[in-house]
Amino acid sequence: MTDLTTALRHTLDGRWAAVRDQIRGEFDPERFAPPSQELTMEEYRERVAKQVQLIAESGHPARGFPKSLGGNGDLGGSVTAFEMLGHADLSVMVKAGVHWGLFGGAVANLGTQRHHAAYLPSIIDGTLPGCFAMTETGHGSDVQSLGTTATYDPATDELVVHTQTPAARKDYIGNAARDGRMAAVFAQLVSRGESHGVHCVLVPIRDEAGSALPGVTIGDCGAKAGLGGVDNGRLTFDHVRVPRTNLLNRYGDLDETGVYTSPIENPTRRFFTMLGTLVRGRVSVAGAAGAATRTALTLAVTYAGHRRQFAPPGGAEEVLLLDYRAHQRKLLPALARTYALQLAQNQLVSLMHDVQSADAVDEHAQRELEARAAGIKAVSTSHATATIQTCREACGGAGYLAVNRLPMLKADTDVFTTFEGDNTVLLQLVAKGLLTDYRDEFGSLDTLGMVRFGARQFAGAVIERTAARGLIQRLIDAAPGRDSESGPRDRGWQLELFEDREKHLLETLAMRLRKAADPESDAFTVFNDAQDHVLSTARAHVDRVVLEAFVSAVDECTDAGAKAVLDQVCDLYALSTIETEKGWYLEHGRITPARSKQVTAAVNDLCAALRPRAQELVDAFGIPESWLGTELLEEPARAFAQG
Amino acid sequence: MTDLTTALRHTLDGRWAAVRDQIRGEFDPERFAPPSQELTMEEYRERVAKQVQLIAESGHPARGFPKSLGGNGDLGGSVTAFEMLGHADLSVMVKAGVHWGLFGGAVANLGTQRHHAAYLPSIIDGTLPGCFAMTETGHGSDVQSLGTTATYDPATDELVVHTQTPAARKDYIGNAARDGRMAAVFAQLVSRGESHGVHCVLVPIRDEAGSALPGVTIGDCGAKAGLGGVDNGRLTFDHVRVPRTNLLNRYGDLDETGVYTSPIENPTRRFFTMLGTLVRGRVSVAGAAGAATRTALTLAVTYAGHRRQFAPPGGAEEVLLLDYRAHQRKLLPALARTYALQLAQNQLVSLMHDVQSADAVDEHAQRELEARAAGIKAVSTSHATATIQTCREACGGAGYLAVNRLPMLKADTDVFTTFEGDNTVLLQLVAKGLLTDYRDEFGSLDTLGMVRFGARQFAGAVIERTAARGLIQRLIDAAPGRDSESGPRDRGWQLELFEDREKHLLETLAMRLRKAADPESDAFTVFNDAQDHVLSTARAHVDRVVLEAFVSAVDECTDAGAKAVLDQVCDLYALSTIETEKGWYLEHGRITPARSKQVTAAVNDLCAALRPRAQELVDAFGIPESWLGTELLEEPARAFAQG
Repeated sequence: MTDLTTALRHTLDGRWAAVRDQIRGEFDPERFAPPSQELTMEEYRERVAKQVQLIAESGHPARGFPKSLGGNGDLGGSVTAFEMLGHADLSVMVKAGVHWGLFGGAVANLGTQRHHAAYLPSIIDGTLPGCFAMTETGHGSDVQSLGTTATYDPATDELVVHTQTPAARKDYIGNAARDGRMAAVFAQLVSRGESHGVHCVLVPIRDEAGSALPGVTIGDCGAKAGLGGVDNGRLTFDHVRVPRTNLLNRYGDLDETGVYTSPIENPTRRFFTMLGTLVRGRVSVAGAAGAATRTALTLAVTYAGHRRQFAPPGGAEEVLLLDYRAHQRKLLPALARTYALQLAQNQLVSLMHDVQSADAVDEHAQRELEARAAGIKAVSTSHATATIQTCREACGGAGYLAVNRLPMLKADTDVFTTFEGDNTVLLQLVAKGLLTDYRDEFGSLDTLGMVRFGARQFAGAVIERTAARGLIQRLIDAAPGRDSESGPRDRGWQLELFEDREKHLLETLAMRLRKAADPESDAFTVFNDAQDHVLSTARAHVDRVVLEAFVSAVDECTDAGAKAVLDQVCDLYALSTIETEKGWYLEHGRITPARSKQVTAAVNDLCAALRPRAQELVDAFGIPESWLGTELLEEPARAFAQG
Repeated sequence: MTDLTTALRHTLDGRWAAVRDQIRGEFDPERFAPPSQELTMEEYRERVAKQVQLIAESGHPARGFPKSLGGNGDLGGSVTAFEMLGHADLSVMVKAGVHWGLFGGAVANLGTQRHHAAYLPSIIDGTLPGCFAMTETGHGSDVQSLGTTATYDPATDELVVHTQTPAARKDYIGNAARDGRMAAVFAQLVSRGESHGVHCVLVPIRDEAGSALPGVTIGDCGAKAGLGGVDNGRLTFDHVRVPRTNLLNRYGDLDETGVYTSPIENPTRRFFTMLGTLVRGRVSVAGAAGAATRTALTLAVTYAGHRRQFAPPGGAEEVLLLDYRAHQRKLLPALARTYALQLAQNQLVSLMHDVQSADAVDEHAQRELEARAAGIKAVSTSHATATIQTCREACGGAGYLAVNRLPMLKADTDVFTTFEGDNTVLLQLVAKGLLTDYRDEFGSLDTLGMVRFGARQFAGAVIERTAARGLIQRLIDAAPGRDSESGPRDRGWQLELFEDREKHLLETLAMRLRKAADPESDAFTVFNDAQDHVLSTARAHVDRVVLEAFVSAVDECTDAGAKAVLDQVCDLYALSTIETEKGWYLEHGRITPARSKQVTAAVNDLCAALRPRAQELVDAFGIPESWLGTELLEEPARAFAQG
């Protein structure tokens, strides 16, 4: 490991570096790497179930629960540990995430003392495998419209959980097809003939012997694109009775006469407060997507630094793939964005840790956290899908072989763009947060509501900086004017361009959506016509937040050599993003054609400048070599040494 | 089937419509669809091997061989039949393509009478399963540098085939791991101590019982991202002896004293003439990529036309996914491009049929065909990868389930972008053809040679129209000037914009590359600095060729209703392409910012206008419903009717 690698890793590892190092050291890759031989679906599920049990024994899951509930109260460390698992078999990461993060998180955050005492010990030690039964066949993104009901029967003091229609069947539920013994079921809570909206009820689904309980029908989603070790299944409830006290009643309760009470009066706000518990799942998925992306880039960059093809004119030795500009263009801007997203992810984890560990609930901060998690999740998972695909192609036929891991990385992470919140819906959520300034209505997945609530109240875009506020203001203040001779690598100019884009998109979006208030116009049509504008606004916002995280991390780096390299990587992230959006910048007169060409030239120059550092840049990810263990890293060197 | 669907299908089916209809009718989807249950790798290979045998019995493979060699002499029909197989299990399509197209094609095109008589009957009837052993571990794109040797031993009148280094091992060879009995091995031909470059030699690899023959070591590439039914393997030769007459000697021969003769004096030209036989494989891969893309779009568009999510403000019924602009934007421009590519593919197949069925060899036409095949293959396979991915995401969790076919379509076609010629290398080939005007050196995969040969001789870009020349000239002549009020849907304006971009890129590329002639400059550096420019030029060329094919097909459509719809689809292809490239057009002053915004507005309008036709547009692909047979098409309708 070079000094540069060590220093870069220090920056990338961030606040929970110790957790990362611990996991690097203690998780035996042989046990946690994807299976090296062909397994049937059942064998693979069996293997992953055992690995999840090993994780239970490792003690890491306790990190994620408050000390008062038997945990260690280290939320950030917990999410970081899950992120590191993303370098191993993603089936293990997802199955563990379903059990501890989603199911355990629902019990911890939506339940009260009686649930904590009864279930958390066996959740933490893994002896009560659980499911998070939210999504239905008919409703995924629109959770508010779920069709399952939980109806109170005062005669027996029970809740009757029932699947009202085929579309209300719980679907794609992890841990359901094989192992889950209890499910956190989201259902419309009905009492005294009145519906109180979606609440969560604990429903046992299997007995100790593993058989489905009476009234519960369990189906199997069967083979999937990836995540073959996760047993996704379907749950149908036929008037299944559970005690009233199985209602997770922190935000809404029934007494024995069926009278409903809640500490949150507004039903919409109550609903979104409950959904706020999803934030940890989204942060974890973003983290795992980042880990998988880093694994793929480590493989592809290392391969490209060894694999040769075609001799130059008159040259003797064939050219390394990574010396071709087209190959640099495929991998290095993606590498820069991967750095940027890891630094933004670290900041997000830190924010979540602080907001959720605080004694008092700061609602504005919680809403902002939810929006940030939604945005980073959407951008990180889309980046993972695109980058792992590029890495596969950059390794040619070798990248298509299962033994070289890229196919599985691609297939396993593919669902990340649409689960834990579909990316399109999540970006709409981000835009809504910007328009409503994170007021109560924020958090609604019903983005059409934005038309009515948000735009009407929008007073003008104010860019709230998310990191290193003073530094960023100084850089922008020092930025040269639009016509100056200063080059595109001026950081203040880049920051200003990112901000300007977000601000313009947000202000013009608000103007368009305000039309919906006009009783003459159809609110859906107004929203729908602007939908692409909504999504661009959200992406521009996330791009800016990510750049600020990067700028802040460069500033904090104390190693001069690493700082200089990080500065170049940050430039490459900023300029390749501007290049991607150059159509918009030119269309809106933000850059001149001459400047646009300078940006492209600067991206090329940065690729060439970083090329000699490429191996160190991926080594800095700190993925133990045995975790990467494939033929891909051994073969080119061996083959070409002798070829 | 509506009248519109019938008329659209007529246009899409093209010259070999009868073949398409025959295959639609006669191939039992139960037998040719991907397996519905989980299979081990061995079971899947077994199944596909049997299906390939059924295809042999169908008589279709004989189409692809000249009548003089025992075939039917219907090359276009043969390739169309393979394309239709692309709607079924792609493992079957690829394994059949390896055997009849590549192995059979090598024997037919590179061999002479003695090989035809000895092997073609058992190749056509499938009783001699064959491999096409070109790629090696160390060399894929750069075929000229293969390391396997075939050395003539006059003492025994034999060729000694030998794997000189580990990097010279034949790799990723389809049909090798399990079934192949003979391989067409590409090797450096050596005689009397002199190398004559790469030639093809027939080498038996397995005996009747299926055991590897002495000196042949057969390895297994194992599990892959997709194409699980294809037995890709590795071949290593340890001084394997075959009779001299096993050399496929059409373009180069040895006599019994080891003296080499060839009808083509220039060794480079000879090499590229032999490689010209690859064209059919590339055309077939482009066709299969198109078929898979159409299957995916049929699934995703149908799903989006039934699946609802979120009620509009004040609205009762939830909104269909396909009514959201963002969803239209995901699917409909991709659908338009899929139409465009199918029409260009039809034209390409027709060109290949005519060029290769002609009595006299037209070398210029053959070179142009090779370039066209390379370009369409690159663009169609990249489009398949991107579009199938989009379709998967557009179907959410349902799109991730194996039963719904999208995962397998994605995984199976993934390798198309890098096999049968890596797309980056193929696009370089296209640019080289444009620069050299398809002169002898064209065809070289050594694109660095372009620097030396091409640019030096480049006299100025002349756009050679590929279809409906008179019509296109008339449209361009009638196009309004740049400052006119005419909207972006003026076809002449679109055509001019496509041509202008290609011409400008080509001319400026030639200027840049000419610098390489300067002895002061390093030729590789000149080429490498321009590599992105090279790739853009090739893409611009293919975009234009595809647009011309579309314009020509619209012109030929005799059904007024279908013609009007095709006209809109063509506009959507043209304008969404311009929108994607708007950065370039704005940077180069080809469009104003105001016109750029009009283009975006027109794309939105076209999406809305075509939305009510979307189901008919995919139905027109004519994929029998039983070939699509998944839950995806039944479930949303069922679930929502009752939800």
